Amino acid sequence: MERIGVGLIGTGYMGKCHAMAWNAVTTVYGDVPKPQLIGLCDIPSAAATARAAEFGFAYGTSDWRRLVDDPAIDVISITVPNHLHAEMAIAALQRGKHVWCEKPMAPTLSEAIAMTQAAEASGQVAILGYNYIQNPAIRHARQLLEAGAIGPINHIRIEMDEDFLADPQAPFTWRSEARAGYGALDDFGVHPLSLLWTLFGRPASALFGEMARPYATRPLVGGTKVENWDIATALLRFAGDLTATLQMNRAAWGRKGRIFLQIFGAAGTLLFDQERMNEIMLYRHDGDEANAGFRTILTGPAHPPYERFIKAPGHQLGFNDLKIIECRQLIGRIRGQPSIAISFAEGLQIERQVHAIAKSHRDGRWVGLEA
Amino acid sequence: MERIGVGLIGTGYMGKCHAMAWNAVTTVYGDVPKPQLIGLCDIPSAAATARAAEFGFAYGTSDWRRLVDDPAIDVISITVPNHLHAEMAIAALQRGKHVWCEKPMAPTLSEAIAMTQAAEASGQVAILGYNYIQNPAIRHARQLLEAGAIGPINHIRIEMDEDFLADPQAPFTWRSEARAGYGALDDFGVHPLSLLWTLFGRPASALFGEMARPYATRPLVGGTKVENWDIATALLRFAGDLTATLQMNRAAWGRKGRIFLQIFGAAGTLLFDQERMNEIMLYRHDGDEANAGFRTILTGPAHPPYERFIKAPGHQLGFNDLKIIECRQLIGRIRGQPSIAISFAEGLQIERQVHAIAKSHRDGRWVGLEA
Amino acid sequence: MERIGVGLIGTGYMGKCHAMAWNAVTTVYGDVPKPQLIGLCDIPSAAATARAAEFGFAYGTSDWRRLVDDPAIDVISITVPNHLHAEMAIAALQRGKHVWCEKPMAPTLSEAIAMTQAAEASGQVAILGYNYIQNPAIRHARQLLEAGAIGPINHIRIEMDEDFLADPQAPFTWRSEARAGYGALDDFGVHPLSLLWTLFGRPASALFGEMARPYATRPLVGGTKVENWDIATALLRFAGDLTATLQMNRAAWGRKGRIFLQIFGAAGTLLFDQERMNEIMLYRHDGDEANAGFRTILTGPAHPPYERFIKAPGHQLGFNDLKIIECRQLIGRIRGQPSIAISFAEGLQIERQVHAIAKSHRDGRWVGLEA
Amino acid sequence: MERIGVGLIGTGYMGKCHAMAWNAVTTVYGDVPKPQLIGLCDIPSAAATARAAEFGFAYGTSDWRRLVDDPAIDVISITVPNHLHAEMAIAALQRGKHVWCEKPMAPTLSEAIAMTQAAEASGQVAILGYNYIQNPAIRHARQLLEAGAIGPINHIRIEMDEDFLADPQAPFTWRSEARAGYGALDDFGVHPLSLLWTLFGRPASALFGEMARPYATRPLVGGTKVENWDIATALLRFAGDLTATLQMNRAAWGRKGRIFLQIFGAAGTLLFDQERMNEIMLYRHDGDEANAGFRTILTGPAHPPYERFIKAPGHQLGFNDLKIIECRQLIGRIRGQPSIAISFAEGLQIERQVHAIAKSHRDGRWVGLEA
Repeated sequence: MERIGVGLIGTGYMGKCHAMAWNAVTTVYGDVPKPQLIGLCDIPSAAATARAAEFGFAYGTSDWRRLVDDPAIDVISITVPNHLHAEMAIAALQRGKHVWCEKPMAPTLSEAIAMTQAAEASGQVAILGYNYIQNPAIRHARQLLEAGAIGPINHIRIEMDEDFLADPQAPFTWRSEARAGYGALDDFGVHPLSLLWTLFGRPASALFGEMARPYATRPLVGGTKVENWDIATALLRFAGDLTATLQMNRAAWGRKGRIFLQIFGAAGTLLFDQERMNEIMLYRHDGDEANAGFRTILTGPAHPPYERFIKAPGHQLGFNDLKIIECRQLIGRIRGQPSIAISFAEGLQIERQVHAIAKSHRDGRWVGLEA
Repeated sequence: MERIGVGLIGTGYMGKCHAMAWNAVTTVYGDVPKPQLIGLCDIPSAAATARAAEFGFAYGTSDWRRLVDDPAIDVISITVPNHLHAEMAIAALQRGKHVWCEKPMAPTLSEAIAMTQAAEASGQVAILGYNYIQNPAIRHARQLLEAGAIGPINHIRIEMDEDFLADPQAPFTWRSEARAGYGALDDFGVHPLSLLWTLFGRPASALFGEMARPYATRPLVGGTKVENWDIATALLRFAGDLTATLQMNRAAWGRKGRIFLQIFGAAGTLLFDQERMNEIMLYRHDGDEANAGFRTILTGPAHPPYERFIKAPGHQLGFNDLKIIECRQLIGRIRGQPSIAISFAEGLQIERQVHAIAKSHRDGRWVGLEA
Repeated sequence: MERIGVGLIGTGYMGKCHAMAWNAVTTVYGDVPKPQLIGLCDIPSAAATARAAEFGFAYGTSDWRRLVDDPAIDVISITVPNHLHAEMAIAALQRGKHVWCEKPMAPTLSEAIAMTQAAEASGQVAILGYNYIQNPAIRHARQLLEAGAIGPINHIRIEMDEDFLADPQAPFTWRSEARAGYGALDDFGVHPLSLLWTLFGRPASALFGEMARPYATRPLVGGTKVENWDIATALLRFAGDLTATLQMNRAAWGRKGRIFLQIFGAAGTLLFDQERMNEIMLYRHDGDEANAGFRTILTGPAHPPYERFIKAPGHQLGFNDLKIIECRQLIGRIRGQPSIAISFAEGLQIERQVHAIAKSHRDGRWVGLEA
Repeated sequence: MERIGVGLIGTGYMGKCHAMAWNAVTTVYGDVPKPQLIGLCDIPSAAATARAAEFGFAYGTSDWRRLVDDPAIDVISITVPNHLHAEMAIAALQRGKHVWCEKPMAPTLSEAIAMTQAAEASGQVAILGYNYIQNPAIRHARQLLEAGAIGPINHIRIEMDEDFLADPQAPFTWRSEARAGYGALDDFGVHPLSLLWTLFGRPASALFGEMARPYATRPLVGGTKVENWDIATALLRFAGDLTATLQMNRAAWGRKGRIFLQIFGAAGTLLFDQERMNEIMLYRHDGDEANAGFRTILTGPAHPPYERFIKAPGHQLGFNDLKIIECRQLIGRIRGQPSIAISFAEGLQIERQVHAIAKSHRDGRWVGLEA
């Protein structure tokens, strides 16, 4: 296979994360050529040049269209704020680039639809940066579920909580504006929904939503009205007698990166907490009541692709490693290999659910996914 | 103070628990006279006699009315199935006995109302056996909340899960019949509601409910249709921008006695899990970000009335000890001392919420408590 | 069987614990007659009378010899400070009483030997109050080990830590005097040794000890020299290639009642922590590497005699419940039933090991048990 | 500063880890130029060429001396088996290269001394790959200790356990040969000793050792005699009334990468477990007994250099990230910046302690470090 030429738009939290992944993927995996890091876009121009040197890209630019037009570039990482995704992704796809875009897709459903249509029209690979699903622990969970290790699943609970908006004295920012979205629902909710998608491969058929504001105002000049919701709860009904509860809170003191899954089946239960991302807890009913209990499984070489990173079990992957795995999946998809990733079309299903939950909150009643 | 004469109806799981409490309360507390264990009712008569000897009661009988009519008896423990509570409690109250009745009050709201009216008319003490609220850990939590240790509370999550109905091959019993109640909602839901009542002293103003059946049938002869719901979820709105989520599941493999509370405030978070009932987890925001974390507090003499049981911290109370504390509260209430207990009038508020959640489930919309 | 007449000497921490057990044992177990609580000894006389009323004993006295001489008394609980054990136990045994004596036996080995000889000469039951070994979790551990669940055991670590002497400003007391014993070694060390005895049934063949003083002095008038050691470590060699490490620290901030066992076998590992006394952690090597992990087993009815106390699993026994179990074992031994308890003869083996560790500390070399 | 030219000897577990670090350090930190990855050595030659392409090195070779002689190379990573360290490190230092050598230094003390002398003679930077000390959690622990957060330290326990030799049926390998070293003592023991060094900056003054063989033989042809010890325990005395216990076990089923530290001070306790490497547990005595408990601190941007990797707290670093930090420390030391790393001279102190423990085991008595 030819080497892949890479362009990167955005060099913040996620931009740097993409850069680390592009730099590391070949060393870690050994089975793909070293990507050619061509161009990087940031503003101002001087920042772009500086970041290009740090991140190992050949050039920096403040004009993202230069990357889209550069024939040496095959795939573009889009890591800028959500409201810019649609324009960039569509432009890149239309010029024949593959796209690796951070989630969520876009603030509005119509933009997400347009992105999906552009991806389909282009025939290029277009995936979203849902990194949590790449965790070997989550992959193992999926395998266990598929193998029936805990029987047919009947109920799921997912909580996603952080505390960056827990302080009522934290100043008002764009995050609390209506135009930033619903709040916790889209900011966090897409992650649990991506996990549900990964584990079960289908969206909910009916949804109910409730959102809450822990603090009605936040200090700025005087005290500015919070326009969205830092707390969101959703009830989901799936085909086949499966129900789920999602709870999101970005004002949850003490929670730093909690994504807690509880998956209940007819023969056992499976737990996972992102704050201890190298562990799975598994309870299996096997009739030996005196020795039944949740076992804490530490990920290791028995849980691919952990072994690509570390030879010994229990030594732990980190958050950034998940992006390296995701990068390898992207390359695999480009090469036509089986891969785990959420495409634009799948991501659109996730965003439809988000909007349905919000509609339910407004209406105070259950909403079907097509509503 | 005069000694208290005690009658006990029922000698099963909870009946024995009451008996242990009546036998222990004076040794543990030292500040109340030894109760006189007068009469005990069970069927058949021989069982009553045997249990009376074991439990230290003066006589056994198969006729509960004998206890109600016995002038030597001042207080009656009612620990029989729920559908028998109303008749017995009302009869006892009408004959001037104090009543200590296991929860929930009764299968129907009208019975619970009648019980409450009988209690009010009698002027006797009438409390319900909500033992979990007696845990020194819960008392400490209440003190912390009242002292503002985690600021104003804005969100609460409570989960109550066990696995005694998790096995789809577990045979059909009365528990899955409609006449036994809603299922997890009343079987379990009253406990989280009693905790909310204890911690916050008010019922929800609006409630939303969802219930689910993990298994549509259970084996008996052929396969019998399950008539109630082993899984229940409720969303609660309280006055003052407080919201809560309750989740109950009696088909949750691996959960044996989990009651997990998450209480989120503007200055911190408090966690508690009944499966580790001697621990509280507390996170307080104090600005020292580098050293912030959930602290696991082991209960000890600093958490009354733990010190009545054990002199050293971290040595652990057990489930049965909570009933001893409850027994002492009952005696205190009879003596006119300040006490922690849920009266029939308060219990009625809990049951109103249960029925409102069930109504919401049927209607698919939010229900006000008065509805 | 005839009823048992009970005498109790001492009404402090452990005395009350014995009293609770004597009051509860019949209600809990149902298979033994209610003990007759005859006489109780405390000083002054008024306290004895008051405690007798609280604890349900027929009379109180300040003269322990009255109990020893009372023909209505069959068994005597001795719960006074260690240096009084020998005289009382020997007198009781010589008058044909059974003895239930708190641990450790005595400050000196010669006293412990005399107690053991008196027990043997009397033919009465004489056991020590090693309550931790009565935990259903520990019993289950023993069964697992005996069944080979984790293969032949090759290494054990036990830590016992509390923090009641952790504060260097805590005033000097008798506990830090040489005549109180070695310090952590005998104060705590007998518990790990009792667990080793219970699990393996044999003493170490060679021992090495090291003791340390975290604080050389403690405040009193001026600053008084600490004469014993708050920290002790011992290395043990057993026959058959089994080694163990014991670590005791009564100046370990944050530890309230930690007794942490790690038992390593050729096919698995078993962990237990007294601070979570209703849990066992078990790792079994079974070749399924991807799903191997420590399982946390919550005790329940599958772990006798838990079911005597509570019908549902995971609801938790408490520290005081262990004494009730121990009381039932004592009664069983008196009745000639199989029972779990550490006799004076076995306790003497434990104390021999304590003294050998102390000798090793003095000599700086390994000490054989016979040394 | 000029770019650094890098050579890498060895491409196994640790070699790849070094390669990942060299590839990532500039992207992560941004404050050092991208290293020039010059040459890599592995055998056979074809493997070297393949790894060079994967790891991003300009050339591969099977002759390590080519790297040592290459003027474009400034620093050499040595990641081959221990018995090869001395020759390579000394050759590299003599040719003016900086050296980054994996630990432990060498099987014999004389080789370690020669390496240290070569480093001193060369004036080059020579550090050892003690990556665990680079964890932001450990750095924070060190800061806490230095700031007196838990008062003067009086006792430390460290356990290091894995289970790769736990299976008695695991075939005999070089690891169990005498020439591979003492076994767990040097294989694992150097890590706890490196942590003690990092946290306290001084070696023990007296040491006592005990080693054990869980399995006397391992299967090969027939059953081969195990020549070293999979279990090792050491007691350490430091100047100033500080004592420590080290326990190492490479046959501990269920332990995958456990390095558990317990640090006891006069005002608190600090715990850390490498299997949950993003957490510290801290107990501080502050007089508020009712709210005292171990707090679990999740590392985050408040714990440098975590923030170089991830912007949000609680998202977790991985094992490989520690090597990136170590790489940045090495570069810092080369540039004359303050840095955290264990030099050859410091590493020699660690190895002296290892040999003293082994000598104590042989002699059955305490050994001074100079012995």
